[in-house]
Amino acid sequence: MANRLEAMRTAAGPLARAMARSAMFMLPPRPPPLVKRKVTFLPGAASAEVEGKATIYDAAVDAGASVNGSCGGRGVCGRCKVLVDGPTERDGDGPLTPDEVASGYRMACLARPLGDVSVMVPETAMNGGMRIESGYADRELGELLPLAYRRTADMPAPTLEDPAPDLERLLAALGQGRLDIPLGVLKTLPSTARSSGWKVSALIADTGSGSRIMSVEPASRPRRDLGLAIDLGTTTVAAEMVDLRNGKVVARASDYNRQIICGEDVLSRIAYAEEHGPRRLNELVLDTINSLLPGLCAQRDDERKFHSGRCGEDVVAVAVAGNTAMVHLLLGLDPTNIRYEPYVPAAGSPPALTASEVGLNVSGEAIVACVPGVASYVGGDITADVVLSGMMLRDEPSLLIDVGTNGEVVLGCRDWAVCCSTSAGPAFEGGEVSCGMRAMSGAIDAVSISGGKVDVSVMGGGRPLGICGSGLIDLIGQAFLDGEVDRKGRLTESPLRKETDRGPALMVSPPEDGSKAITVTEDDIANAMRTKAAIYAGCSALLRSVGMTFDDVSQVLVAGGFGRHIGISNAQAMGLLPDLPEERFSVIGNASLGGARAFLMSAERRAEARAARDGMTYMDLSSSSEFFDQYSSALFLPHTDAALFPRVLGRMKGEREGG
Amino acid sequence: MANRLEAMRTAAGPLARAMARSAMFMLPPRPPPLVKRKVTFLPGAASAEVEGKATIYDAAVDAGASVNGSCGGRGVCGRCKVLVDGPTERDGDGPLTPDEVASGYRMACLARPLGDVSVMVPETAMNGGMRIESGYADRELGELLPLAYRRTADMPAPTLEDPAPDLERLLAALGQGRLDIPLGVLKTLPSTARSSGWKVSALIADTGSGSRIMSVEPASRPRRDLGLAIDLGTTTVAAEMVDLRNGKVVARASDYNRQIICGEDVLSRIAYAEEHGPRRLNELVLDTINSLLPGLCAQRDDERKFHSGRCGEDVVAVAVAGNTAMVHLLLGLDPTNIRYEPYVPAAGSPPALTASEVGLNVSGEAIVACVPGVASYVGGDITADVVLSGMMLRDEPSLLIDVGTNGEVVLGCRDWAVCCSTSAGPAFEGGEVSCGMRAMSGAIDAVSISGGKVDVSVMGGGRPLGICGSGLIDLIGQAFLDGEVDRKGRLTESPLRKETDRGPALMVSPPEDGSKAITVTEDDIANAMRTKAAIYAGCSALLRSVGMTFDDVSQVLVAGGFGRHIGISNAQAMGLLPDLPEERFSVIGNASLGGARAFLMSAERRAEARAARDGMTYMDLSSSSEFFDQYSSALFLPHTDAALFPRVLGRMKGEREGG
Repeated sequence: MANRLEAMRTAAGPLARAMARSAMFMLPPRPPPLVKRKVTFLPGAASAEVEGKATIYDAAVDAGASVNGSCGGRGVCGRCKVLVDGPTERDGDGPLTPDEVASGYRMACLARPLGDVSVMVPETAMNGGMRIESGYADRELGELLPLAYRRTADMPAPTLEDPAPDLERLLAALGQGRLDIPLGVLKTLPSTARSSGWKVSALIADTGSGSRIMSVEPASRPRRDLGLAIDLGTTTVAAEMVDLRNGKVVARASDYNRQIICGEDVLSRIAYAEEHGPRRLNELVLDTINSLLPGLCAQRDDERKFHSGRCGEDVVAVAVAGNTAMVHLLLGLDPTNIRYEPYVPAAGSPPALTASEVGLNVSGEAIVACVPGVASYVGGDITADVVLSGMMLRDEPSLLIDVGTNGEVVLGCRDWAVCCSTSAGPAFEGGEVSCGMRAMSGAIDAVSISGGKVDVSVMGGGRPLGICGSGLIDLIGQAFLDGEVDRKGRLTESPLRKETDRGPALMVSPPEDGSKAITVTEDDIANAMRTKAAIYAGCSALLRSVGMTFDDVSQVLVAGGFGRHIGISNAQAMGLLPDLPEERFSVIGNASLGGARAFLMSAERRAEARAARDGMTYMDLSSSSEFFDQYSSALFLPHTDAALFPRVLGRMKGEREGG
Repeated sequence: MANRLEAMRTAAGPLARAMARSAMFMLPPRPPPLVKRKVTFLPGAASAEVEGKATIYDAAVDAGASVNGSCGGRGVCGRCKVLVDGPTERDGDGPLTPDEVASGYRMACLARPLGDVSVMVPETAMNGGMRIESGYADRELGELLPLAYRRTADMPAPTLEDPAPDLERLLAALGQGRLDIPLGVLKTLPSTARSSGWKVSALIADTGSGSRIMSVEPASRPRRDLGLAIDLGTTTVAAEMVDLRNGKVVARASDYNRQIICGEDVLSRIAYAEEHGPRRLNELVLDTINSLLPGLCAQRDDERKFHSGRCGEDVVAVAVAGNTAMVHLLLGLDPTNIRYEPYVPAAGSPPALTASEVGLNVSGEAIVACVPGVASYVGGDITADVVLSGMMLRDEPSLLIDVGTNGEVVLGCRDWAVCCSTSAGPAFEGGEVSCGMRAMSGAIDAVSISGGKVDVSVMGGGRPLGICGSGLIDLIGQAFLDGEVDRKGRLTESPLRKETDRGPALMVSPPEDGSKAITVTEDDIANAMRTKAAIYAGCSALLRSVGMTFDDVSQVLVAGGFGRHIGISNAQAMGLLPDLPEERFSVIGNASLGGARAFLMSAERRAEARAARDGMTYMDLSSSSEFFDQYSSALFLPHTDAALFPRVLGRMKGEREGG
């Protein structure tokens, strides 16, 4: 039986939509021609209706969705490669391979919808200059010992008096105790040892349960070992390419998780896997990560003479921080049981694997390790947050809030920690909001409203394409303080209120020069309020479970993909964050990515991650009436019990009196 | 540069012959028809010359070589499958697969030699009832913990209060600390755990460097896990199929090592690998072992309902004791450096692997572990001997002599041990002796001579086909005591002396009913004397190195494939064994096989093997002038210094006076 959180979420529709889409994907209906077809672009859900011979690219232009058309729609540049779920006919496949076509990839300029379709636009197919914001507050890495590290073995040449075998000679020179060695490496050892004059460089993987020699090369060969830190999110995947010698980031890239085509949130992905098996979702997430590699390699700042010249081959270690379901799907594990009470994953700490086992296009022997997770709904991404924050090394309690699709909360200190997941929803990541988008170029990321006048800031400048999490928080907080939105989240009569075909909406940015209007509807606000209510209720439930209040919290760490520029006071005004002095807040951004890099680079941080996993007690909120009471109370602005937000009340009064 | 031992051995010719054969194999000359072709049958080197349309089977009949012709040479029964090195033409391939034909297999009844060829006759192609003797003196296995063992995990079903992941739940129930788990097993865990009601059986491999879960199944499923203990010899391969629950042997099989087609001794095999790469030798030894499996499974004494019904799939652990070169070739490691000073192998203790990595036709996940070896010429077979003998648990020094192709010697006790290899040669294993054969049906395994009258015992009864090691030792010892052979190994004038086309020979068994005569020539005796001299000299050199004499030795353990019925007094008479009271000798037979079984079944014995490997100091005799002096002195019967053999002298006198 699906859980109560799911039931709550299903009301909002994404699961039902996902199921409908997936059914359509399997049995494409063949509609009569010339009927209007709806084309929905993901992420963001911009849509257009087309008829006749219109292509998906035409629909994208109509919908205002960003799809690259460098070659003018002649099917030659390959830039408009999108993933399509639904029936199409094609005038060819341009540079796509048959495998890609079989996987659902299409050239937007060559494919015509034959029915309603969903189109996932990878970042590579968006117009240039887009970058998903994935910065984070950094932390010292401590002593460096990456997941894969080099040791030079300077061996005495064998003699009749010292005829120890090559392997035993190597192990003695490495002085590391037990080291596993694969047969393939052992086969190359005799010739490498002799050709190098008995001075070799061994690349060693720290597998968590031991150490394994990954390769042995002459010590004289120049090399530059690279690692990847990956934040594997339900909505976006962000990666950093890291120089393993010093931990420095040499390249960054991110993209939407292509699994979006199979459902926007975790539960709909699991439902898809349950119906169709995990294979397609596994392929899609591998596609997503592997597609980041060319861009990462192109950014890489140094000469290419090292190794084989193939940058991907230099990547010998990969650390992944993801929620539990995403990690399952990356490894091809069946996530079904995550969805059903008592919500038990196959593994919290999956074993370290090789890139060839996982299917990543880096060095086949590269070690791939996932940051361990606590439970089905508090995964390695949260452990990574905790590691980056260092909160479990402090004496005073901290509250960590990850405003991702799920909305996880951790409360704790050196001696204890509790955590939960709130099933918050993706409203602050651009999901389930009509003009929503991720924090990236073109997103409205900050809003101020005064006396009915709106002022917006657009990432990268230019015309806005949508609104991201920090912009939405600002908008709702400011509109509430300014009086355009009431305590129930309904629009008041004001100059900003417009009637649209999706109901009453706030006009955030009017249409100009033919660009579309950016509006936020009452439904969007209701979605955002459900999200904020779930997060606030989760914090409250954790505090109550240990007999504490917000005042006992020494710091509030805010992590998540809505950008690092969240306006704390606006978040408090909408009741997302508690009404504490602003200096207690610390916005740490995409901490999961930072934690993954720490896990990649430092044995000390890996030990911290394991200790954090063991030290966190998981509270299941789906069975907590306390949580549902708190949730219901939080479905107002800022809260049913306004006394919990004295500073916000003060500002409201001040603003209104001032206005 | 090849070593001095090799130079010594090359004089006897096997290396040169092997090189010639292998060159022929690569570039088969096409001779004119109707010319006589020589067909040499290995092992044993019986040969015949054929002309015209004669098949290999016809040649075998002429040569007296045992080749099965059940179907009367119609090419249908498949029993006469032999391995041919040299050019042939064929009237078809009977039931052979194209892969087998490509590997050099032929139906003897369908293949005609086009030039001189060597033919390796696997035991399966010999006439029925043949079994290579591979018994050994057993030792208690101690507490059983096989290389692969089962543990039942009775897990509490998860609840909302105890939602630990499946993997962590399994590990907790197994209570074993760190256990590696392959991705494939992890993928099956969720469904297996649930379908079994949370009661599963885990098969766990002890890899030496840790433990790995090999499979997880419902605890209720009936199963019978089997293991293989393998003595991987240069000449023969012997295997026991063992019930892993109790260590009992359920089937036995053995065969000649098919690598013989590429050279009879270790050095010629290495030379072959150096010239052609190790691949063909690797395939041949895998062929040899895999071909034993059907026979082992057929012998298996219990019902077939267990597991998949495929007996080979029930084999989940394989322990291999082999000399260092054989282990290299089994694993596909390049053995080249074993042959060149300072004689350094790639690995003494290769890592534990899976059967699919190695290429054995048992369960793909089966663990394959090799008994660790000390040096290039004292391998895991000798460590296995030491483990079976228990000599390194005793306070008093023992001397262990393994009369295999190499002739290794170990001297030691609880506190210390030294060891060496003597490059003895295969004379006592049926090699390099004109009528030599292994200890198996048809072999003369005991000889007594009194007053010029010979009496022989034939294994399995019937007419003799050749003479094995114990028979040859008896023959030379008895003939020396009786006066038919002088101190230099030359034949005296006696009724037993016959002139043959290979020079003067002792008539051991006259031709009868059309069967061939079994004779031993002066060259054969010279070969046997070189072998015994090398072994005796090795013992002497080891004793001198620690300042001891034979009298200080509390027990002499004699291991080797010449059968368990060696006549100690005759071995002393020829100077192979020292002149100590007979009660100090213990013949332990194929101790390497017994040690492999102990290694398979007991963690205690595996620890003993590692301790033995670490505790044995290897002496390289190729640089020892002491050894060469001792060797030269031992090239007489029983020895240049007859005072070393007072008991033998006494018997000689008695015998001669009595006669």
